[in-house]
Amino acid sequence: MGLSKNRIKYIRSLKEKKFRSEHNTFVAEGVKLVFDLLATCRCQFIAALPEILYAHPEIKAEEIVEASESELKKATFLKTAPQVIAVFYRPDNEIEIIDLNDKLSLVLDGVQDPGNVGAIIRIADWFGIEHIICSEDTADIYNPKTVQATMGAIARMKVHYTVIAAFLQNYSHLPIYGTFLEGADIYSEPLSGNGFIVMGSEGRGIGSEVMKQINRKLFIPNFPVGRATSESLNVAAATAIVCAEFRRRER
Amino acid sequence: MGLSKNRIKYIRSLKEKKFRSEHNTFVAEGVKLVFDLLATCRCQFIAALPEILYAHPEIKAEEIVEASESELKKATFLKTAPQVIAVFYRPDNEIEIIDLNDKLSLVLDGVQDPGNVGAIIRIADWFGIEHIICSEDTADIYNPKTVQATMGAIARMKVHYTVIAAFLQNYSHLPIYGTFLEGADIYSEPLSGNGFIVMGSEGRGIGSEVMKQINRKLFIPNFPVGRATSESLNVAAATAIVCAEFRRRER
Repeated sequence: MGLSKNRIKYIRSLKEKKFRSEHNTFVAEGVKLVFDLLATCRCQFIAALPEILYAHPEIKAEEIVEASESELKKATFLKTAPQVIAVFYRPDNEIEIIDLNDKLSLVLDGVQDPGNVGAIIRIADWFGIEHIICSEDTADIYNPKTVQATMGAIARMKVHYTVIAAFLQNYSHLPIYGTFLEGADIYSEPLSGNGFIVMGSEGRGIGSEVMKQINRKLFIPNFPVGRATSESLNVAAATAIVCAEFRRRER
Repeated sequence: MGLSKNRIKYIRSLKEKKFRSEHNTFVAEGVKLVFDLLATCRCQFIAALPEILYAHPEIKAEEIVEASESELKKATFLKTAPQVIAVFYRPDNEIEIIDLNDKLSLVLDGVQDPGNVGAIIRIADWFGIEHIICSEDTADIYNPKTVQATMGAIARMKVHYTVIAAFLQNYSHLPIYGTFLEGADIYSEPLSGNGFIVMGSEGRGIGSEVMKQINRKLFIPNFPVGRATSESLNVAAATAIVCAEFRRRER
């Protein structure tokens, strides 16, 4: 029994995208997150303190291991060792083009920071957005930092990686929004209950090919209104404000 | 010339709060951030690539050092070495109680993550909020991760650390807002142009002593409206939505 050295090595290897892809798995840590995921994802392997396992005889996984605090401490990516670490198979998110015509979806163009991507998944979940389309250079949602930052929302979100300029061409009949310093005041513009909201990378914003697909440019006004600024909002903060405003209009 | 081992050691020591307090200084990295800070903060020490120094003869600092890429790489807290690293004296933010009666200010009760605190400073700056009052257990704004996450907004924000329950008692005549799952829909409630918005810690929310000072409870509705959820928004995302809505009402 116990969490073997090999298993610890396997868990830690999943910090690398290469190994996550090879095994088609990802790591989640902590009771709340792991139990949220157990409801929707197939679990390959779970290591937990004995009291957690005794309290939850319903846990289903290909392999279940009792672990000590010190073993969990060796395996964890967190600062404080969690009570449970699990490895899940990635869900198979096939995208049906026809799916998204009636929905409001998010598009991420090169969002690099795993924490930002995690925060955005959590925001999307709060606001009932079901699909996120990511460019290939967007941070991998299965990065352990992203998984943790979603606080379980990753269990409900369908995330797809693709060439987004080409993807959006299929939807040129829908409103495709982006935020820009020179965009129109989001509070004065009509906002749709379907279509796409594109958020750009932290450093360079939205790329030129994707830009061509955007047919509605929005601006989040700062305060006092019209104050000159060279600043911008963090991409997760901007996503939060935009999603909240879209959904406020739909009430 | 060059960046000496002792200087590199000094810069790296400022990762620790203890040393930042002892020297009353903090580190900032990267051209944009450092130049934003040079406009408002006294600079103790600046190390930069020669081309940066030649291009900016106006730089004022107690000590200016030409550094090579490999020296900057040894000193940096970032993944990629910046072109410039600087050490600034902390501004002296004395708080005048009378100051805040006519303003909308933010209060952070135990926000632990340096990245969240940095994102919140940037949000506050965007929405024209000038003062942030932090509990003593809120992450130090001079943590290098926080300084970088503010993207220069730290140069304009007045941040004060104090016992916030006692501080807020002086303002019980003003609206003091907090967000709660059982609060009133933010879109239906009157919102004031002055007072305080209290944001709680990522894990435990707002503490019980501070809770007693809150006289207006708000809720950010999820979507579809009324959907049962055990989830919440990240504290920076919630701050963004709340600040945006307060300022939208003031237009």
